[in-house]
Amino acid sequence: MFESTLSAAVEDPVFTMHRGGKISVRPSVDVTDRQSLAMAYTPGVARVCTAIAEAPGLAADYTWVSNTVAVVTDGTAVLGLGDIGPAAAMPVMEGKSLLFKRFADVDAVPICLACTSVDGVVAAVAALAPSFGGINLEDISAPRCFEIEDRLRRLLDIPVFHDDQHGTAIVTLAALRSAARVAGKGLGQLRAVVAGAGASGVAVTKMLLRAGIGDIAVSDSKGLIYRGREGLNPVKAALADRTNKAGLTGSTESALRGADVFIGLSSGTVAEPAIASMAPGAIVFALSNPDPEVHPDVAGRHALVVATGRSDFPNQINNSLAFPGVFRGALDTRARDITDAMKLAAADAIAALVGADAAADYVIPGQFDERVAPAVAAAVAAQARADHIARR
Amino acid sequence: MFESTLSAAVEDPVFTMHRGGKISVRPSVDVTDRQSLAMAYTPGVARVCTAIAEAPGLAADYTWVSNTVAVVTDGTAVLGLGDIGPAAAMPVMEGKSLLFKRFADVDAVPICLACTSVDGVVAAVAALAPSFGGINLEDISAPRCFEIEDRLRRLLDIPVFHDDQHGTAIVTLAALRSAARVAGKGLGQLRAVVAGAGASGVAVTKMLLRAGIGDIAVSDSKGLIYRGREGLNPVKAALADRTNKAGLTGSTESALRGADVFIGLSSGTVAEPAIASMAPGAIVFALSNPDPEVHPDVAGRHALVVATGRSDFPNQINNSLAFPGVFRGALDTRARDITDAMKLAAADAIAALVGADAAADYVIPGQFDERVAPAVAAAVAAQARADHIARR
Repeated sequence: MFESTLSAAVEDPVFTMHRGGKISVRPSVDVTDRQSLAMAYTPGVARVCTAIAEAPGLAADYTWVSNTVAVVTDGTAVLGLGDIGPAAAMPVMEGKSLLFKRFADVDAVPICLACTSVDGVVAAVAALAPSFGGINLEDISAPRCFEIEDRLRRLLDIPVFHDDQHGTAIVTLAALRSAARVAGKGLGQLRAVVAGAGASGVAVTKMLLRAGIGDIAVSDSKGLIYRGREGLNPVKAALADRTNKAGLTGSTESALRGADVFIGLSSGTVAEPAIASMAPGAIVFALSNPDPEVHPDVAGRHALVVATGRSDFPNQINNSLAFPGVFRGALDTRARDITDAMKLAAADAIAALVGADAAADYVIPGQFDERVAPAVAAAVAAQARADHIARR
Repeated sequence: MFESTLSAAVEDPVFTMHRGGKISVRPSVDVTDRQSLAMAYTPGVARVCTAIAEAPGLAADYTWVSNTVAVVTDGTAVLGLGDIGPAAAMPVMEGKSLLFKRFADVDAVPICLACTSVDGVVAAVAALAPSFGGINLEDISAPRCFEIEDRLRRLLDIPVFHDDQHGTAIVTLAALRSAARVAGKGLGQLRAVVAGAGASGVAVTKMLLRAGIGDIAVSDSKGLIYRGREGLNPVKAALADRTNKAGLTGSTESALRGADVFIGLSSGTVAEPAIASMAPGAIVFALSNPDPEVHPDVAGRHALVVATGRSDFPNQINNSLAFPGVFRGALDTRARDITDAMKLAAADAIAALVGADAAADYVIPGQFDERVAPAVAAAVAAQARADHIARR
């Protein structure tokens, strides 16, 4: 396996691109002589340190912290690869840092942690928090990710945002708003089935409930989640209380009969007859990567709107439409948190860019639509001010 | 105080230079279209992650980790300012990161920690270690810095280097080699007095002992350190066993009578008569910043060679001659540690650049001598291989 990987690496342009990493640190001031050295470093720098010690708010003006986000993982749930550890997670975190800069001029630093206990991750992130203006949690397995994010949000006065949850939820809601428009249905009329109760499944469900969707049934590897099902963890038990009004039991596929929306976040599969059993004007978001729960061509035979996570089909639902702008808006306002209302505002801003142009093959802007990050940033910033958590 | 700081900030070019910070993150690959995005991020990046999961050594080739150093402080001993906390320490750590890039093309990330317990700092640095090829500890107060560094060196398989200790020691030894040459004395003939038993005083003393200096007496705020003095912490007790052969007691100044070398690392002062009482051909390194223990003009009336930490006098002894090249050499060889022999090799490399050109006003290369970092890197790399701790 090792040899085959190495020989693959030699041939593969992806490896060529990754050699030496995808980001670097760049001085933003010139140090060319004694005088500039004495300003950027000792003795001049001591004046800046002293000023910040006297008035801590000045750190935001005179350091890079207020434009900087840590992209933090413990390597336990990397892409679809699972628990591959911190070293192997680094290429994803670097990629994310690259996109932060590319799309929103945010300085992002990849941090892959050697610890995986909830207490350990919380302590490590809390320890390094003074170095950053925000924390983007990434690829941390469920249900640990929920407790880690909750505790860090309570502990820290900077935004903490688990992108696998909220980035996915924001972009999914944005796409669903446009898809509902294409289907001529209101969000409150929709009955949805979400396959997957991991980080993204839980967050998407919560966000769609907040946005006012009619009803959602959620399934995990044991089938539909309903109130009273044995062995539910606390997160799933809480979901059971708020979803599946009809109390459906059984499989994901059985719940699709007559449903308006399918959202796959499961790495599972859904057979064609189940898609065919959905309501007229069905919306299918088969988001597992790289293999959607149902092939888009198959889904397209029965559904009105089909979206995937893949770039080689129309309607790519990808977090990178959300996280750069979300943090840009939060950093611009020095927000203390990213609230639910800010996440909803981000989704609405993305949906508004599609607006009346929405069509079966256009429910979400493209990855390189340069309007997206600024629109998301503006909406998030405005909502931060409305929520009174902006510090400027 | 707050207002006076703010108005000072408006006028001061140092603050203008610091606005927004001194470093940024820069993508080193272009992401301009779907294809490049699919290579740098999902789905292509998964192949690189998988390869590293199978063969962890590949992380050094296909991520930025092997060229990246964390500049870590807890803000407890920042410059001469003391325990000003992590937020106020950031400008120094950014400055250091800037110099890492400027002088040795090392990507350095400033990390200011919110915890100050030895256990907390060790746990935090150990947690984030997979993200970096080396750890530069900075501005951590003594004696905590000794235990933190010792424990991290044992725990981690990447170099851990407390620059306040070893950077200072390397440059001081380099300058002393040249100064001894100017004085026509061998290192083994010198009797030195070191004022200060903090991080740098202890490290300089240990290094000069290793290099074979004749004798050293070390003093702290209570006077000279000698075997059996009451209340010595373990670090000072260990020093007492190896220094001050004559068993001198009393003040720093009393020990200077007939001494060949004074090295000030104390923030204290030394009066002119004490300098005048030194041996003929005396060497005075008054390294406290911004106020040397004795003004160089005063010292110059009696001493043959005078050096300070300041850029506005000849012979500036500054860590930035050492740390960029030390880490460059360690990273180039993927060394597991920075050994004592590697530190000695770094000092010798710097001294060799001065060589026979050594003069009373030239015992150390200038800050912008572009030969320094490559020479240090080469010497450190060669010694890493000789010490069998290089991984390539």
